[in-house]
Amino acid sequence: MATYAKRRALLISSSNLHGFGYLEYCTKHIKDFLGSNTEKVLFVPYALHDRDAYAAKARAKFEDMGYKLDSVHEFSNPVEAVKSAQAFFVGGGNTFRLLKTLYDENLIQEIRKRVVEDGIPYIGTSAGSNVGTCSINTTNDMPIVYPPSFNALNLVPFNINVHYVDADPTSTHKGETREQRILEYHEVDNTPPVLGLREGCMLLVEGDKAVLQGETGARLFTRGEDSVQYSPGADLSFLLKMTS
Amino acid sequence: MATYAKRRALLISSSNLHGFGYLEYCTKHIKDFLGSNTEKVLFVPYALHDRDAYAAKARAKFEDMGYKLDSVHEFSNPVEAVKSAQAFFVGGGNTFRLLKTLYDENLIQEIRKRVVEDGIPYIGTSAGSNVGTCSINTTNDMPIVYPPSFNALNLVPFNINVHYVDADPTSTHKGETREQRILEYHEVDNTPPVLGLREGCMLLVEGDKAVLQGETGARLFTRGEDSVQYSPGADLSFLLKMTS
Repeated sequence: MATYAKRRALLISSSNLHGFGYLEYCTKHIKDFLGSNTEKVLFVPYALHDRDAYAAKARAKFEDMGYKLDSVHEFSNPVEAVKSAQAFFVGGGNTFRLLKTLYDENLIQEIRKRVVEDGIPYIGTSAGSNVGTCSINTTNDMPIVYPPSFNALNLVPFNINVHYVDADPTSTHKGETREQRILEYHEVDNTPPVLGLREGCMLLVEGDKAVLQGETGARLFTRGEDSVQYSPGADLSFLLKMTS
Repeated sequence: MATYAKRRALLISSSNLHGFGYLEYCTKHIKDFLGSNTEKVLFVPYALHDRDAYAAKARAKFEDMGYKLDSVHEFSNPVEAVKSAQAFFVGGGNTFRLLKTLYDENLIQEIRKRVVEDGIPYIGTSAGSNVGTCSINTTNDMPIVYPPSFNALNLVPFNINVHYVDADPTSTHKGETREQRILEYHEVDNTPPVLGLREGCMLLVEGDKAVLQGETGARLFTRGEDSVQYSPGADLSFLLKMTS
């Protein structure tokens, strides 16, 4: 039976929030999470097409926060880069592209091992948070490429829906609402809870503790139960109990 | 080389349109499409979880239009039901669930053969239109189940995005817009055009002709080119020319 005592993850809904710059609203949370022992972050840019541009953007922001940043796509051997990483930052974009590339580069088990066994901190935003969970079944993204599985890093045993929004009651659009889509997922047998993280919100996971951070809050959907709203500061450690 | 002379498909963006009942705004188009030679329609309810309820809803509407309706899930042998169908109606819901079930029931090649070789008319709404195209790569739905492939019925050699909406310039939401998602798809090599069908719009395909019908219109995204708006009545036959 695996132990998750060393696990540390900061799963952020989105890198952008209306009125703020890139990662601006969560700068303090990231710095608190990485602490003073981290000198350098390994960035995973696979969710976007232009990896060089994405790495430059992330590097500027992390240097501004006092950290060096390497991008995994700059290494001839990405597995070795993961093996020596001090911290991970997995950026947003298209979740299918991100997950497929992690499989293509043989990084799924490697990243998971570093986080769970070695206690290497994992920061995800948007698609990067999605792939941190058990699967990408609740991504909002278009399936632009076909990954070998929807199973993901499984750092936590539930799903996250990033950029979560409640339905707009004034909308005349007939496409499914976010809530309807999540409820459709829960029509499938044995599906885990889905934490709908609003933009401006993130989940801090340390060992067997999980706490909601940020300003906006989250809505938790559990199969066969009414959904529940949670505010920043809420203890969601119970979501980790399915971990085995 | 396949010939598509007999192919007939009515690919509808959505069964619902603000201000109208189920399939109400497109009733005339469906009746014109099926004509007087069709007595009975074979319904494919796999996109929704409750197949009985979905079949009852579709049956009531089609009987109201003067057609009998069988649902494929009511047959012990779905392949035989497809082989003897006079027309297909594939309803909307979750595209991943629909496509996976079509594969599980061995219906992909069978439906395609009936439409392309036998000239059996195909009506799709929403997810049903998505699976009528070359692939489901441009669905809006959540990947709640894992199909064995994203390749679909390939009745037409391009993609459709149903419920297409332009970005709301007043939105403060930071999730990707529909246009951004489609442009991400076109960052992938060799991806075909994507026809963004607005709610209230449909594409009528007959042999090597394709015409936009309905009231609202469509926006065509072609890799490496500027997108183009089309109004109802537009001849989009050029989209079929990639057919081989």
